[in-house]
Amino acid sequence: MSAEKVRARLAGSHLRPIGVIRSTLKSRNNAPKQGSEGAPDAWLEVLPWAMNGLHRLEVGDEIIVITWFHRARRDVLQVHPRSDLRNPLTGVFATRSPDRPNPLGLHPVVVHAIDGSRLRIGPIEAIDGTPVVDIKPTLR
Amino acid sequence: MSAEKVRARLAGSHLRPIGVIRSTLKSRNNAPKQGSEGAPDAWLEVLPWAMNGLHRLEVGDEIIVITWFHRARRDVLQVHPRSDLRNPLTGVFATRSPDRPNPLGLHPVVVHAIDGSRLRIGPIEAIDGTPVVDIKPTLR
Repeated sequence: MSAEKVRARLAGSHLRPIGVIRSTLKSRNNAPKQGSEGAPDAWLEVLPWAMNGLHRLEVGDEIIVITWFHRARRDVLQVHPRSDLRNPLTGVFATRSPDRPNPLGLHPVVVHAIDGSRLRIGPIEAIDGTPVVDIKPTLR
Repeated sequence: MSAEKVRARLAGSHLRPIGVIRSTLKSRNNAPKQGSEGAPDAWLEVLPWAMNGLHRLEVGDEIIVITWFHRARRDVLQVHPRSDLRNPLTGVFATRSPDRPNPLGLHPVVVHAIDGSRLRIGPIEAIDGTPVVDIKPTLR
């Protein structure tokens, strides 16, 4: 299959925000690199039009929140993992670097509370204002 | 934060294919709903420009392949899970339905072989020609 044909299948792939992260983490510089590394809980504010998509989601559910790292660099294909020059240069597809061609973030979290259109989730390293593009049940 | 401001952060979020799935599964109708339900292995053909992103990925690695379901409906917020009307109507964010506002697919697979720019991966329920937008190490 030609690269052109594959690209054509993504012609309509502009992402729509379904919500946004509201967090005490305000900048990428002081955010943990992974949720499991001391990240806080945060609110996921779901936009009004997408609220019906939450039906039957429950407190205690394990979910994967998919974010878009809107500040990431999309022209990066190799990095030193964890920004540590002692780590050998590695392809971004073998790392969790936010800098990558399509800067999607996967965040496995637990739903701690549901308050109308707001979900209390965590732990999550995404910074305040990060757009959310999807929510899925945890992979099994 | 206003919905307009969140939308602005996705202004440049058109996805770029980094590869494509080549599979014996040719149509969504006869594809298993999950990789664990008898899905086959498949080839992930990485596009030439993205190949450097594979550096240090190894046979045996557990990865998550992120696809774009280019045939999905983006206007669906609730479904009967597994297309079974006996299952109660459920918000898409509590299901793995391909029909959802941003039809991203998450596929946890194992790398069985690496042949230049092609990865043999599986099991995976994505059909032939499905665009791939990201590859990440498995969540821990």
